[in-house]
Amino acid sequence: MTVGSVDDLDLSQLDLVFSAVESKAARGIETKIAALVPVISTSSAYRYEEDVPILIPGINDEHAELLEVQKKNRDWKGWVAPLPNCTTTGLAITLKPLYEKYGAKKVLMTSMQAISGAGRTPGVSAMSISGNILPFIPNEEDKVRKETKKILGRLKDGKIEDADIGVSSTCTRVPVIDGHTESVFVETAKEIDPQMAKQAYDDANREITVRGLPSAPENYYAFHEDPTRPQPRIDREVGDGMTTTIGRVEKEDLFDHGLKYVLFSHNKKMGSAKGAVLLAESLYKKGKF
Amino acid sequence: MTVGSVDDLDLSQLDLVFSAVESKAARGIETKIAALVPVISTSSAYRYEEDVPILIPGINDEHAELLEVQKKNRDWKGWVAPLPNCTTTGLAITLKPLYEKYGAKKVLMTSMQAISGAGRTPGVSAMSISGNILPFIPNEEDKVRKETKKILGRLKDGKIEDADIGVSSTCTRVPVIDGHTESVFVETAKEIDPQMAKQAYDDANREITVRGLPSAPENYYAFHEDPTRPQPRIDREVGDGMTTTIGRVEKEDLFDHGLKYVLFSHNKKMGSAKGAVLLAESLYKKGKF
Repeated sequence: MTVGSVDDLDLSQLDLVFSAVESKAARGIETKIAALVPVISTSSAYRYEEDVPILIPGINDEHAELLEVQKKNRDWKGWVAPLPNCTTTGLAITLKPLYEKYGAKKVLMTSMQAISGAGRTPGVSAMSISGNILPFIPNEEDKVRKETKKILGRLKDGKIEDADIGVSSTCTRVPVIDGHTESVFVETAKEIDPQMAKQAYDDANREITVRGLPSAPENYYAFHEDPTRPQPRIDREVGDGMTTTIGRVEKEDLFDHGLKYVLFSHNKKMGSAKGAVLLAESLYKKGKF
Repeated sequence: MTVGSVDDLDLSQLDLVFSAVESKAARGIETKIAALVPVISTSSAYRYEEDVPILIPGINDEHAELLEVQKKNRDWKGWVAPLPNCTTTGLAITLKPLYEKYGAKKVLMTSMQAISGAGRTPGVSAMSISGNILPFIPNEEDKVRKETKKILGRLKDGKIEDADIGVSSTCTRVPVIDGHTESVFVETAKEIDPQMAKQAYDDANREITVRGLPSAPENYYAFHEDPTRPQPRIDREVGDGMTTTIGRVEKEDLFDHGLKYVLFSHNKKMGSAKGAVLLAESLYKKGKF
């Protein structure tokens, strides 16, 4: 691998740039590159701008049209297409089929996030996390709320209208190497039960737009009736980390209509690096670069 | 320590028996002993009987009066006084001051429970839990629901009226040795905010009935504004495992009124063994044996 300074890049030789740096550094770098070449980013630098979609391939492909608005607004030849925060990814992916068929009013989520999500420079120290739980991840809960509402929102007149869903979360770090587990309570607008949810995920598996792309898993969703799933150690291997696992699905009687469930999403695969590649494949197929 | 068969016990020489065995075995053993001598139990064998209180010292002392009804009903010389399941303990303890001042309508909880809660015979295998999360603990969620409602209920005409609170939970096992962490979303009946919650816990600390008993901690509650608390590795040492820690307290905007918070409770200390001793001290002080 050749390592070079971003300032020495000959952008005229590139069709697309993957940006995977800290948000503060990302802002300057991505701004410079996008003027000439499309950028797919794992950082939050551009996520909350009005003309920037937050894209999960297969979930909100129609938001990609906002990239055209972005190019025009900013007089760029390229664009910036960010992925969500890796904790949002699993939540938005599992909510989407439920939201489409049954609506969603409130979501209350508790995450148990992997160590690798904090990176390596310096990341979380082994002294802090071994045999422990860290009950706070700075800015994470705010990101989950804003991003989930935007991803499930509707593109209308060149803007995204946030989905009208209340999203609250408590995000924690646990001694797991890879993969985020999330415990979700969701109030739906319409009557729902675990079998209806299973059907919604089965249907989504058949209809998912990314099907057949090189980085797409055979099954976008894995739905388990075995209550001992999902487990990070087992489920991070499924679909080479690109399958989102759902288990412990039960009716939530505290809501008029709703479910509780546990999800697992691989933060380094679908939640960032390989998810960025799948997004590139999906945007390429759409002719966006 | 002398180890003998329960059948060889000379009950006439004992004032009180601590029972800490599996529920199935406990039923027969406790029934036999309670006919003659009071029993404090960590098992669920008797928890759900109408004339049996589930006692947390300092939280629902008034339910101890049900022990007299129990004696009469069963024509026993002793009684059985069970502690709750160790996952209920932290939840009921932290809800109590909020419930009394602000009411509670709905509680949605996700637990991250310690390995030691599963015992040692055989308990959870290291192969299963290292670097992993187990998303299911059989019967646990049902216990949390039933016990929380009973503990926060009202003793009236020789019966406990369950508290009118909806309680739902998802209980998981995490690679932590000792102490249960719980992420709680609670809808209160009245307006509340973190400062009002802090005041309620401060007041409870001053008024708690167990104050001064040999096994009681100096502070029954520890309330943190530092968002990095509670942490199992730090907070299990506080008050020799008898202090319940509360942190991450924020307004929960998805409810008309409510809070979200994270609690930590030591499952082997306040949640069982030493909690049983504190209960004995508290019942002795009340003249119950």
